[in-house]
Amino acid sequence: MTSSVVETAQFHKKLISDYDYSLSHSGINGERIAERLTELSKIGLTEQGGSRRISFSPEERQAKELVKRWMKEAGLVIREDGAGNVFGLFKGKQQKPSVLSGSHVDSVPNGGHFDGPLGVLAALEVAQAWKETNYQPDCPFEVVIFTDEEGARFNGGLTGSRAVTGEIEIEQQKQLRDFDGKPFEEVISEDGLTLEGFTQASRDLSEISAFVEVHIEQGKRLEREGLSVGVVTGIAGPSWLNVTFVGEAGHAGNTPMNDRKDALVAASELIGKVEKLPTQVSSSAVATIGKIEALPNGVNVIPGEVRLTVDIRDIHEDTKNSLVDLIVKEAEEIAAAHQITVNITETLNVKPVVVSEEMQEKAAKAIENTLGVQPYYLPSGAGHDAMVLGRYVPMAMLFTQSKDGISHNPKEWSSLNDCVKAVHVLKNFIEQLCDNK
Amino acid sequence: MTSSVVETAQFHKKLISDYDYSLSHSGINGERIAERLTELSKIGLTEQGGSRRISFSPEERQAKELVKRWMKEAGLVIREDGAGNVFGLFKGKQQKPSVLSGSHVDSVPNGGHFDGPLGVLAALEVAQAWKETNYQPDCPFEVVIFTDEEGARFNGGLTGSRAVTGEIEIEQQKQLRDFDGKPFEEVISEDGLTLEGFTQASRDLSEISAFVEVHIEQGKRLEREGLSVGVVTGIAGPSWLNVTFVGEAGHAGNTPMNDRKDALVAASELIGKVEKLPTQVSSSAVATIGKIEALPNGVNVIPGEVRLTVDIRDIHEDTKNSLVDLIVKEAEEIAAAHQITVNITETLNVKPVVVSEEMQEKAAKAIENTLGVQPYYLPSGAGHDAMVLGRYVPMAMLFTQSKDGISHNPKEWSSLNDCVKAVHVLKNFIEQLCDNK
Repeated sequence: MTSSVVETAQFHKKLISDYDYSLSHSGINGERIAERLTELSKIGLTEQGGSRRISFSPEERQAKELVKRWMKEAGLVIREDGAGNVFGLFKGKQQKPSVLSGSHVDSVPNGGHFDGPLGVLAALEVAQAWKETNYQPDCPFEVVIFTDEEGARFNGGLTGSRAVTGEIEIEQQKQLRDFDGKPFEEVISEDGLTLEGFTQASRDLSEISAFVEVHIEQGKRLEREGLSVGVVTGIAGPSWLNVTFVGEAGHAGNTPMNDRKDALVAASELIGKVEKLPTQVSSSAVATIGKIEALPNGVNVIPGEVRLTVDIRDIHEDTKNSLVDLIVKEAEEIAAAHQITVNITETLNVKPVVVSEEMQEKAAKAIENTLGVQPYYLPSGAGHDAMVLGRYVPMAMLFTQSKDGISHNPKEWSSLNDCVKAVHVLKNFIEQLCDNK
Repeated sequence: MTSSVVETAQFHKKLISDYDYSLSHSGINGERIAERLTELSKIGLTEQGGSRRISFSPEERQAKELVKRWMKEAGLVIREDGAGNVFGLFKGKQQKPSVLSGSHVDSVPNGGHFDGPLGVLAALEVAQAWKETNYQPDCPFEVVIFTDEEGARFNGGLTGSRAVTGEIEIEQQKQLRDFDGKPFEEVISEDGLTLEGFTQASRDLSEISAFVEVHIEQGKRLEREGLSVGVVTGIAGPSWLNVTFVGEAGHAGNTPMNDRKDALVAASELIGKVEKLPTQVSSSAVATIGKIEALPNGVNVIPGEVRLTVDIRDIHEDTKNSLVDLIVKEAEEIAAAHQITVNITETLNVKPVVVSEEMQEKAAKAIENTLGVQPYYLPSGAGHDAMVLGRYVPMAMLFTQSKDGISHNPKEWSSLNDCVKAVHVLKNFIEQLCDNK
């Protein structure tokens, strides 16, 4: 056996080892989900046992084709749009707008096997369960695979969902170069796609009544609460600030403490403040200084310049903006107090999207109906295709417990029990949406 | 004219432009000092107008040979030891231990034209002034050029003075590789030197009654005080700590503020403390965090690890050690409070050297005698050959004003007036030492 066969055999064995078979009911089949997760994990398997399915690569394509095969098995009518998004239609009893559910099959360069695939397979399992139990919802249901969610190739992402909602600017897109310097148009042509196709992928959004995405949490809240599934309250769009403090470099030995303009000392005050400010504005706000660079970065030189980034998120736009303002004000006050200068640039500002009360209530009811537990609510700190769709149509997300909160890493893990429970919740949720239950 | 001819013509012109010719007296000749500084500046002149005379290079050698020529002109008896240190002897009336004065002619890769050369030329000017005024001191006087003070080649430095005092460990020295990976032995052989020669360079230190070094301040104190020359109170040996905080990386969006182990937040507390602690232990102590690295250093990732360096200096060993202890204790307390770990390694611990009261008094008297101003005292934060000599023999240093405190940089500058004043002080100081004036 090659090592990848061993890896995937172990992956499947680990998935199934503690599976509670009583969860396979109502047409939902945990063993099938385990097998499909395993089959997908084989495509682009890395030496570390992770997943490498970069967008528009042969691996993303292969994964899409495999899911299409399963879609056929579930009786879905398959359509691929000009952006490579795949839609598998389960016909409804009535001519109504569709409910959509799905996620993506691309990954970061050495990612896990749940981020994306779980959302696609969960939606597919709902359709297949309906088929096997001879159930037909009132409204049409579409299982979706969005292209290039991760953005690992062009440093962007959410490309497929932005094409569907008509957000893609083709002229901007043409400027993009991938990690090898290859232009966007060339990259997509290798996947059989065209720029024109991306424009044509834009859908009439009145055809869509709701979008629901199942995703792993990529955090630790559900694990800490001992819960399998949670209701997402909103998706926090990030704001990114580049902050540069410019003081004065100097010899560490020959400059008295009272005659310094140490940019790192000023930066450290900001770091301390940024940790304390979010809870002052909102319980869901977070702020992180993840990157820092001191110049000239010599052991015996006082840092003359420090560059750092601040990542600020909240699911509410007003509190996020207040937090950005507070941090900017704080940085300016610190610089003034140290008689140094500070330069602040906002490099990213993604609008957060709140999940409507109504959608949250339906999701909560689905949890109560299927798992018999009190629903737990949590924000999503990361962006998802659901954020893009949620700007235009009713949207909801269900999070599944992530082991140790680890994601974008071969160690990413969710138990099969938690995954299957999420599918039960999703099925009940979509039935409520389609049949106005 | 080539650009380097223009550069050096400008250098000379700038030196002489505001020279107060009345300072040329008692055999001391400011124009000669300006010309010699200019001649040396031509050797290894960089495109930025700086100096590149790496140790053991043809440029350092060429500078030594040029100074030897001037030593002959001043009537000195020249000797070069096995480490390439050059001694120019001005005979004394009596058979007594020598007073030594000098510095180095090597430089950092793009350094200035005063750091090193000024100390050598100042000592040489004293001898030449004596010759021209028919003065002979009681004791022998030696003008010294030490080899490889800067250590830019092997990341060490003070090599020549350590050879003279017998501190060089030949076995350790053999392990060194230069920036091109060339072994120490090969590098020195290209300069005509041998490992054996380095061992033989060790001198009987009872032959030396005192060492005095003139050097640019490389700080701003004298400039702020409006003074030309200052008396160094001691040379602060640095202690270097490598501090690594290990917390927990996590997604910037999905990790609530109260569930983080952010290594950068802990590091920032230490940075704040390190700025405040030195003045609590001693007025001459300083501490600097010059290097910092956050891992994984991603905009949207909570730093799981932060590595930083602390450079701690004082001229008094006990207060320096107390400061090291305080900083270590603080780092440990911060880590404990954040429930993260910290690793601290001391990578360097150079003993500071205090200048004796007696030597400081003589230097101060020389300032009063020659410049008629109140002496000003200041510590040296950087290491110098005088630090090595000072471990064994009475030592003193005179600092000359540095423009903007800039050093190790083509912009390094000291006015010719300040340089010549320093020579007058040095001459008077050495006459006191030699003749027990």
